[in-house]
Amino acid sequence: MTDRNSILGMAMLATLAALPAWAQEAVAAPAVNTAFIFNTLLLLIGGFLVFWMAAGFAMLEAGLVRSKNVTMQLTKNIALFAIGSIMYWLVGYNLMYPGDTWAIAGLVGGFGPANIQGEIAPDAAYATGADFFFQLMFCATTASIVSGTLAERLKLWPFLIFTTLLTGLLYPIEASWQWGGGWLQVQGFNDFAGSTLVHAAGGAAALAGALILGPRLGKFGGDGRVHPMPGSNLALATLGTFVLWLGWFGFNGASQLALGTEADANAVAIIFANTNMAAAGGAIAAMVLTRALFGKVDLTMLLNGALAGLVAITAGPLDPPLFGALWIGAIGGMLAVVAVPLLDKARIDDVVGAIPVHLVAGFWGTMAVPFHSKGASFGMQALGFVAVAGFMFAAAGLVWSILKATTGLRPSQEDEILGLDKAELGLEAYPEFRA
Amino acid sequence: MTDRNSILGMAMLATLAALPAWAQEAVAAPAVNTAFIFNTLLLLIGGFLVFWMAAGFAMLEAGLVRSKNVTMQLTKNIALFAIGSIMYWLVGYNLMYPGDTWAIAGLVGGFGPANIQGEIAPDAAYATGADFFFQLMFCATTASIVSGTLAERLKLWPFLIFTTLLTGLLYPIEASWQWGGGWLQVQGFNDFAGSTLVHAAGGAAALAGALILGPRLGKFGGDGRVHPMPGSNLALATLGTFVLWLGWFGFNGASQLALGTEADANAVAIIFANTNMAAAGGAIAAMVLTRALFGKVDLTMLLNGALAGLVAITAGPLDPPLFGALWIGAIGGMLAVVAVPLLDKARIDDVVGAIPVHLVAGFWGTMAVPFHSKGASFGMQALGFVAVAGFMFAAAGLVWSILKATTGLRPSQEDEILGLDKAELGLEAYPEFRA
Amino acid sequence: MTDRNSILGMAMLATLAALPAWAQEAVAAPAVNTAFIFNTLLLLIGGFLVFWMAAGFAMLEAGLVRSKNVTMQLTKNIALFAIGSIMYWLVGYNLMYPGDTWAIAGLVGGFGPANIQGEIAPDAAYATGADFFFQLMFCATTASIVSGTLAERLKLWPFLIFTTLLTGLLYPIEASWQWGGGWLQVQGFNDFAGSTLVHAAGGAAALAGALILGPRLGKFGGDGRVHPMPGSNLALATLGTFVLWLGWFGFNGASQLALGTEADANAVAIIFANTNMAAAGGAIAAMVLTRALFGKVDLTMLLNGALAGLVAITAGPLDPPLFGALWIGAIGGMLAVVAVPLLDKARIDDVVGAIPVHLVAGFWGTMAVPFHSKGASFGMQALGFVAVAGFMFAAAGLVWSILKATTGLRPSQEDEILGLDKAELGLEAYPEFRA
Repeated sequence: MTDRNSILGMAMLATLAALPAWAQEAVAAPAVNTAFIFNTLLLLIGGFLVFWMAAGFAMLEAGLVRSKNVTMQLTKNIALFAIGSIMYWLVGYNLMYPGDTWAIAGLVGGFGPANIQGEIAPDAAYATGADFFFQLMFCATTASIVSGTLAERLKLWPFLIFTTLLTGLLYPIEASWQWGGGWLQVQGFNDFAGSTLVHAAGGAAALAGALILGPRLGKFGGDGRVHPMPGSNLALATLGTFVLWLGWFGFNGASQLALGTEADANAVAIIFANTNMAAAGGAIAAMVLTRALFGKVDLTMLLNGALAGLVAITAGPLDPPLFGALWIGAIGGMLAVVAVPLLDKARIDDVVGAIPVHLVAGFWGTMAVPFHSKGASFGMQALGFVAVAGFMFAAAGLVWSILKATTGLRPSQEDEILGLDKAELGLEAYPEFRA
Repeated sequence: MTDRNSILGMAMLATLAALPAWAQEAVAAPAVNTAFIFNTLLLLIGGFLVFWMAAGFAMLEAGLVRSKNVTMQLTKNIALFAIGSIMYWLVGYNLMYPGDTWAIAGLVGGFGPANIQGEIAPDAAYATGADFFFQLMFCATTASIVSGTLAERLKLWPFLIFTTLLTGLLYPIEASWQWGGGWLQVQGFNDFAGSTLVHAAGGAAALAGALILGPRLGKFGGDGRVHPMPGSNLALATLGTFVLWLGWFGFNGASQLALGTEADANAVAIIFANTNMAAAGGAIAAMVLTRALFGKVDLTMLLNGALAGLVAITAGPLDPPLFGALWIGAIGGMLAVVAVPLLDKARIDDVVGAIPVHLVAGFWGTMAVPFHSKGASFGMQALGFVAVAGFMFAAAGLVWSILKATTGLRPSQEDEILGLDKAELGLEAYPEFRA
Repeated sequence: MTDRNSILGMAMLATLAALPAWAQEAVAAPAVNTAFIFNTLLLLIGGFLVFWMAAGFAMLEAGLVRSKNVTMQLTKNIALFAIGSIMYWLVGYNLMYPGDTWAIAGLVGGFGPANIQGEIAPDAAYATGADFFFQLMFCATTASIVSGTLAERLKLWPFLIFTTLLTGLLYPIEASWQWGGGWLQVQGFNDFAGSTLVHAAGGAAALAGALILGPRLGKFGGDGRVHPMPGSNLALATLGTFVLWLGWFGFNGASQLALGTEADANAVAIIFANTNMAAAGGAIAAMVLTRALFGKVDLTMLLNGALAGLVAITAGPLDPPLFGALWIGAIGGMLAVVAVPLLDKARIDDVVGAIPVHLVAGFWGTMAVPFHSKGASFGMQALGFVAVAGFMFAAAGLVWSILKATTGLRPSQEDEILGLDKAELGLEAYPEFRA
């Protein structure tokens, strides 16, 4: 647009000499760069939709824990988002997008707080503030994934310390490898909106935590039995899923990062439609599979199936046709269902199913990219996944271990049985409703 | 815009000869078609707002059923949306917008899955993917309307089969009559965003179902008394109403289908303001009327009044002044209130009041169009309403009857008393809260 | 844009003579005014986000009252929004934006209903309908603030009468002083999106009401003790906070009122990022402070801290760097925490903490503007705050006093103990959940 308009200006120089002075000035003024505005608007809309996902995680998790731990889960979710916002400003943004200031080239970016004020660069594609706002939401999403898995038996402050490190250091570093122009991008890894960089990364951090933290008291019997601990409010959990589904249109759609041309607008539209289709495929596949396996439809599996479909399409939502999005989502939904008994067998206690949804379906979505996207290879996808998930698992594991040895991670057995709301916060979520 | 820019290009041919080769190429490149981008963006924003209405219906219905049926209602609402997404892709979209490929001219469109990838046509007003995404949401809305009326005594699978046919065939066929350029549009029917095509259609399908299914056990006493069965969570129901109100800005506003000119932007703005005003009118009218009739304000009537106001303005939200939107909405709200005892008298059990809100107010809204829109006639509006609602009532009635004779529709009396959550799904929504 | 394009047209006159007649006509057609479209779109997106805040207040308040008053609180919130919509059309909009038709110059605007239909003025920056829609939401927000403070002991109808006067007269008059071009704007007061004009105004009206209404029965013991009355549903309260946080992006961001240039898009982006940062700062500061003061983290304080941060940044969200937004928000959050025991000491019963959040943090945010915005002075900020809050306190106090003397404000003691839901509405919010 700018180019064309400046050319138009040049083309008119021949006739300009005949114009009055004020008209010559007006022509010399820069034309409105509508692409800058459209792109910025896309990031702002996408950003507020992904912000909304923080509420979705909060409702999903509050609905899936027992009522004695609801206040704690809500507290963690509000606090993690606030911490993520601050840490991403303080260090995360520049660490993730180092430009030419890598601390270790392609591996670790630069350190320093983000600055969104200042002159607009002449060739800027969008406002820096909009990019910061949008990218921050992805950082916070990664932290949201962790909180659900570890619910009901993790104290508040160690979780907040972990979140501080996750949002300030761990996520920005691994995300820089791809989105900051680091080594994974150079190698040709493909992850459009973060099946690996956000979802599997969060899932891997959650898995490390679950292994170190151990299961909730009474979850796994000595006899190998799994004791169900049903969520206290499935209406909230369903609301949370709808919120996440809605937010995902921004998550994937605005990851196109541009809306200033017809081709970009078309791409965003395709991404919206494919994202929805993958969620639908995941939901229906999970519903049918639970009916087939267990004889009954399980609402929580239906919800997780939809979310797994969304995670699965996230690595490549632009290239598949609608049918491609459907089957990629459907396989994601089925994997999330079958992963649950495997986790149980391994005695890994994942309260909300975040590991099946974000790590397992994230892996699947990453590996599915080459089916529809030219230039993507299964080997490179596997390498990228292993690098990111492995780094996050190791780094998060280290942090959890240090926290375990210092602050401690778990409340006392009495406190866990009483519930974290009364024990640690002194505030019940539903004080008038008796069990 | 495109035309003008291409003319500008032509006008410059005389001076172009003096430019270097690279500049000649740049001038030859097509200008950015901002109208395409604006229109696409409108459909995407409208689409995600109407998607959000699916969550609104889920919360409204989950709040208005008794707690023993909440999981089932949530399951139906997530599943119907997923099914609608798939069916609208598989057959609905092409059936509804056949272009030149009608199976029966003006009555039944063509069959085949939707394709949103491919070249952008030079004269395209918006991205096909955005149109698919937006229109799909209207199809799903129609199905959402049905689930509420039939709550608490309809088994899961027959509902899902009905939804499959509704979203794949019934809705696309009747909607094609108007929005696909079929016989109703040719005749001059007016239904801007679907008072008839979506809301009355859904309400008619719900009415057919309610008649065939019968009322909940104990709803109507042998003595002619109506036994109230209050909703279990009015906070959820209110949340759902707010969500629907919000989503309706997209429902009506984006039905302008264009944002690329000042006139279109102005039109969308008027629609937003009128839509809000109609909801306000419906809410206040219903509040005052329930106070006058029953001596007390009834929150559920207030909620349904707002929704009825929204349904009423949907057929013609652009042409009335704000005061017109107010009284159209207010009458819609009052009709929704007075329809409730009439349904009770007819022993039709509509759990959430969807028939008063969507069918009755949809009729009113359709008939109110000629008051403000030139070219609309009462006769044609009545004909359109009767055709669509009649078709939907008959077709849905046929499907419900076949399902009744084959799969059966109702759970056993024991299961209905126990609640569908425990009986059919084995999962309670609020397992820790005792009645 | 228009100017430049018309100049371009002029520049081409020399070559136009060689074009065919139809091409000459096309060139003569006006170019698309993309700024009008962008600006209108910003107001519509901002408007629906602020609409959503009405739902946020409803959920926040429904979650923070006891279950016996939930239906009443929901009823008030839906009804106040509907009343505000109607009153702002009937008189508020013209009263607030009198243009040249002030009844008393700079103090009281003109009377008459709003009209959003009609020709688009050639120099219009945005659609009138979009402006009406957006500004109406601010009016309704002011009313939402009042309902929470006075919950659990104020009858429905006096509240609705008060709301009618607040939204029709009181808010539009004081807001006209600044945003309508009245005396405060002339004097140089700065309040970008309404820390004073909306939040402190609502808080002052609530404070007047709380003083006249008195505390809930049993809130303050004869022995000087404060009896906690914990909210019935903290999941709802947290949801409401997330909704408000989300809506605030529209509240502050769209108050830029323009998106048609790169500079405006950049400004909106900065506002989004700063708004988020202030909320994060408020949340973390409140969390840490409650931990330090009371030994435990208090979720409700965390929620109110985030909201106080949002209120604080609202007066000047554009000029501070991210760190500025952080500390302004953080101080807002701390002030909200320390204000609570002060209110308790004064035996002022504010059920949801709206006075600390909206009045106290609104004062702070107004006074913080000169730290970052050139041209703002502490004296003028103080004057503006005192004028608006003082006017609102006095005017609202007068209305509350008249209502107390006529309709009465409080239910009987028996009714208050029974709960307003049963006593006044005959409808419980959670009829199946027993305390």
